[in-house]
Parts: sequence; C-alpha cells; structure tokens
Amino acid sequence: MTEEQVLERIERARRRKPKVKEERITLAHGAGGKATRTLIEAVFVEAFRNPVLEPLADGAVLDVDGGRLVFTTDSFVVSPLFFPGGDIGDLAVNGTVNDLAVCGARPLYLSAGFILEEGFPVADLRRITGSMAAAAARAGVQVVTGDTKVVQRGRGDGCYVTTSGVGVLERDITLGDSMVRPGDAVIVSGPIGEHGVTIMIARGELDIEADLASDTAPVHELVAALLDAVPVRMVRDATRGGVATVLNEVAQAAKVAVVVDEPAVPVRPVVNGACELLGLDPLYVACEGRFVAVVDGDHADAAVATMRRHPLGEGAAVVGVVEADPPGLVLLRTAFGGTRIVDLLVGDPLPRIC
Amino acid sequence: MTEEQVLERIERARRRKPKVKEERITLAHGAGGKATRTLIEAVFVEAFRNPVLEPLADGAVLDVDGGRLVFTTDSFVVSPLFFPGGDIGDLAVNGTVNDLAVCGARPLYLSAGFILEEGFPVADLRRITGSMAAAAARAGVQVVTGDTKVVQRGRGDGCYVTTSGVGVLERDITLGDSMVRPGDAVIVSGPIGEHGVTIMIARGELDIEADLASDTAPVHELVAALLDAVPVRMVRDATRGGVATVLNEVAQAAKVAVVVDEPAVPVRPVVNGACELLGLDPLYVACEGRFVAVVDGDHADAAVATMRRHPLGEGAAVVGVVEADPPGLVLLRTAFGGTRIVDLLVGDPLPRIC
Repeated sequence: MTEEQVLERIERARRRKPKVKEERITLAHGAGGKATRTLIEAVFVEAFRNPVLEPLADGAVLDVDGGRLVFTTDSFVVSPLFFPGGDIGDLAVNGTVNDLAVCGARPLYLSAGFILEEGFPVADLRRITGSMAAAAARAGVQVVTGDTKVVQRGRGDGCYVTTSGVGVLERDITLGDSMVRPGDAVIVSGPIGEHGVTIMIARGELDIEADLASDTAPVHELVAALLDAVPVRMVRDATRGGVATVLNEVAQAAKVAVVVDEPAVPVRPVVNGACELLGLDPLYVACEGRFVAVVDGDHADAAVATMRRHPLGEGAAVVGVVEADPPGLVLLRTAFGGTRIVDLLVGDPLPRIC
Repeated sequence: MTEEQVLERIERARRRKPKVKEERITLAHGAGGKATRTLIEAVFVEAFRNPVLEPLADGAVLDVDGGRLVFTTDSFVVSPLFFPGGDIGDLAVNGTVNDLAVCGARPLYLSAGFILEEGFPVADLRRITGSMAAAAARAGVQVVTGDTKVVQRGRGDGCYVTTSGVGVLERDITLGDSMVRPGDAVIVSGPIGEHGVTIMIARGELDIEADLASDTAPVHELVAALLDAVPVRMVRDATRGGVATVLNEVAQAAKVAVVVDEPAVPVRPVVNGACELLGLDPLYVACEGRFVAVVDGDHADAAVATMRRHPLGEGAAVVGVVEADPPGLVLLRTAFGGTRIVDLLVGDPLPRIC
C-alpha cells in the first residue's frame, strides 16, 4: 500500500460509523488497541453519548459547585496478581492516580471495588490492600469508599479491583490530544515496556530470568513539574497498547503526523531482548509509570531537563516531532534510515497486562 | 441465651479487634451480613484507615474546592444478568444513584468499569449499556467515563460492572446511623424483598411462577422529598442483607434498640410465599429500589404522607420505633405478640443478588 492509499483508508474509516464486526467479545477488545477503540465508540459512546464522555480522555472533566474536578475509573484484572515490582493493589492505585495526573489534576480521593473469587486466600487480600494503602500514602491520596462482592469458584480469578478517582484541576490549562500541532516535540518520561515484559516473565511464558521489575509508580509529581515548567499540549500514560497507541490517538485526533526517531526511544536492553523473543515491538508494550507528553517544540529541552530532575523522569527523552503531513499517521524513522508506519495495535499479544 | 447474655456478647465483640477467622474468602464475605462486616473492618478499614472512610456509609463525604461532594462505588455481579424488571445495567446505575441519594446528595455523574468474559455476546453488552443509558436518563445523571477489560473464558461470568458516582450535597444536614435516638420512627419506603425473590425465581431455583419483578429504581427524588419535608436522621437503601442488616447497623452505631412491628412491614404475599419455600425471612432479602429511613417520631405520619405522594413511595409505612433499651439490638414484635431478636445475617442464602 502506498502512503496515499493508507491515508484514503483512514479517511474512509473515519467517515464510517464505527461497527463491532465480531458477535462475541474477544481478548482483543480488552487490549487497548483497534478493537477496544471500536468497541468503545460503537457500544459505549453510542449508548452514553454526552459532551463530557466524548473526548474519551483518561478522565472526565466535571464542573461541580464552581470547581473543576476530574473523575476517572479503571478495572484491573492483571495476571499474576503479584509480580516483581508490585501487585494488582499498587497497580490499581497508581493507575488511577496517573489517569488523574495526566488530565492535569491533583489526585485526591479513590474508591475501590473488589470482585473476589470464592476460595481466595485472605492473606493475599491483606497483602493487596496493604500495597494499596502504601501506594495511596505515597501518592498523597485517600481510599475513602469501597465495595466487595464474592463470586463462585471458576467465575473469577482470585481478585479483580476497580478503582475510581477524583482529583481537582488547579491549573487553568487545557490538555488534550487535539491540542497538538506541527512543530511540537514528543517526549517519553523514561524507558518503556518494563511493566509488560515483567508480567510476561512472571507468567513463566518466557524461559528467561531477567533483572527487571514493573515500572508501576505514581507520576503526578512529575506531570505537575512538567506543567509548571513549559507549555504542554497533552499528557497520556502509556498503559495498554503502549506508546504506539497513545501516539496514534494523538495523530488522529489532532490530524497531524507524529514522526518518531527509533534510536531515541529509551528501551532497556533486557526489554528489547525479551520483546525479540516474544515477537513484540516495545512501542506496543504497556508501561504503568511512564507517560507520553507533547510540548511546544521550542521548550523541548527545558521539558526534558525538568523531568530528569525527578527520580521517575531520569530517563526522559525527546523521541519525536509533530509534522503536518501525512495527517493521522505515526511514522517511525528506523536506525537504518528507513521509515515505517506504526499502526494501532491489532489483536492482543499481552492479555490481562493490567 | 437471655437478653443480658446477648448484650454481654455484643459488648465483648465490640471491644475485640475484628478478626477474619477464615483463611479463604467464602460467599458469605460478599453477602452484606456479619462476615462482610468483619472483612471490611478487619481488612479494608485496617489498611485504609482514614476519617472519611470510617463512617462506612454508602458514600464518602468529601470537601473539595469549598463544595461538599459524595463519592461512592459498587461492583455488580448479579446472576442472571437479565431478569424480570431489569438487568445488571440498570441495577448498577440505580444502585449508585441510590447510594448517593441516601447520603443526601443530588446524583450527578457516574463512571462504569466493565469486566467482560471472552465469548460474551456483543448484543448482550449493547442491551446492558442501553439499559444503563435509559436508567441514567431517568435519574438525570451522565455516564462520563469508563473502562473495559476482558478476561479469558472461565475467569468471569459474562459481564461484571463496577459503577462509581459523584453527587453534590446541597442541603445543610447530617445524616448517619449514629444520629438516631430513642423516640424516632422507622420507615420503609415500600414492599420489601422483591428484587431478591425475583432473582431466585429467574435462576429457576424455585419451581414457581410468580407475577413479580425486581424493584430496581432510582430513589433520589423520593429521598429528596422526604428530606425537604421532615427532620430525618438516616436513610439507607436496603440492598444485600435487606432491612434487617440496615436496622442492625443503626442499632449498633446509635447504641439504641430498634423495635420492629412485624405486621406493619409491607411484604407482598408472593414474596412471603417464596420466602417460606426458600426458608428465608423477607427482612433479610435484598431490595434495589427501597430504603429505610429513621425520622423524628413526631413527624412520622407527615413523612409517610409525603412519601406516598411519590410513585416509588406508595407503599411507604412506619414499621417500628427506636427505644433506649436494649442498646445494640433489633427486636421483632411478631403478629402473635412474641418478641425475637433479629440478628445480622450469617452465611449467604442468596449469593450474587446484585
């Protein structure tokens, strides 16, 4: 396919009403890529249609009682529940803190809903709630309300957690994929793919041992430092679907091209090695403590310098630029001087990563 | 056991640190009764300890940006997903709307997190989101943010939904179990137990056919009318564990006796009949559109008159009074002039009722 044909296809797809072709839910519908996007647009947006929901950002901005709040939710079904660097508990707290943070909010309060499988060890539940409490303390938030349901053996998988969060917007700024424009710079906050690869190794699906841990962490301070330092267009945490998915959504929403310089993308050798074994591209692998930010191109160096002063941003790097053409596409300039299109994720190479 | 011995046991239990005796989660931990209470106190409150969480109300009252908000969450795992009178979708929306309402808040915004099982029919998901949208429209709230995860076949049960809600407290009143005092009147908003019995019949576990539907409904208008009319101490929706559980929590929190007049409790004959077949007491059976309110005893008639003017309160009735002694107990005066103690629910006769 030529680039023109690709663009034409994208344009046609955009004009079409999104439609779920499958009659039954597949794992790909939960992967954060193309199928998830279609399901969200064709089923959820179709049903709930309203102006707060429709930006489909990580959180919803609410006007309540004169203040501006952000409200967000995420369900966590990660398997295994415990893995190097964390567990489903801190993953859930950090994930919700991060969803609030990347919307520009100061995270304040969380709720937690547990769906437990009959037979789940109470000691494991204690370990999970302990991690949640520690993560909440680290992020300066409180878990203020919750719920517990129990399902029969074989109707769950130990423990699923759904966290929701409320934060407050204290800055008078507007962040969003559609704010991005040509000339902007694309930054990632640190080495990518560590959470996803850690989970794959913890499942024993790779016959390797690696000195690697999940990157799960609360990024609210790092995001706040960035917002205080330079003009920022958008921030998104690169979870399911990884950096590639975030950049595709930016390219499509802002009708710009995102050109990524492959050698500039920070990836640890062990992650690269594991991805090669798995046949994965690290750009699609989930992080749980890394984000993508697009900033005014004139302030790219200042942005990176600011981020590197924070422990969670030590590996921050400019990885690409925003151009006008071809709109809607993410292009990767490889180490060998070639260029290829980085599409939205199809299928689910890494189910239940978060 | 004499009443004195019962009181002594309760007092001893109160002084003891709550402790989960079981090593593994059982269905009873999700039933809303004694085991759920112990799990919440011994594991969740122990881990998350903070002054907003500890009233353990249906929602948390937050001071945000000068306003007072209520924040709540509930996970729904009802089986079957579709039943006479509703489905998991409107159940989830109404449940969260009601949790906000009984805290005295005006419900505003909801989030929805879906955990779908691989193979779940997309048509069923559409039906559920359609019900959610209709219920949200009826209650005047918007679903503004969400999340979808997919788990492998055999790790879920079609569809679980976790809804969270944000509402605003517009009245300058304090509601709570501990506000109840001797002389107050206990009101239920309508016939009880219809949701629970409908679910049991829908499961085919009872070989009866009955003209009965779930009472799932949003009670925010009815609660608001009541709050505007009379001095109200507390309002709680009588879901898992039913009216008996709510009254036990009131009796213990306020250190009062709640004396229920059995013949005054509105129960439809078909519900009574089904409960007899199942060996259940309707006082423990879940409702999803009924609530318990305790009001100033001098205003009991006005309260009931106000409620009966609303379609969802047509069956409202005073069912009991609050007395000083014996503190911490719920007593039932039966039709035959006897008195028995109505304890917290033990075990789970009706798993996955909501």
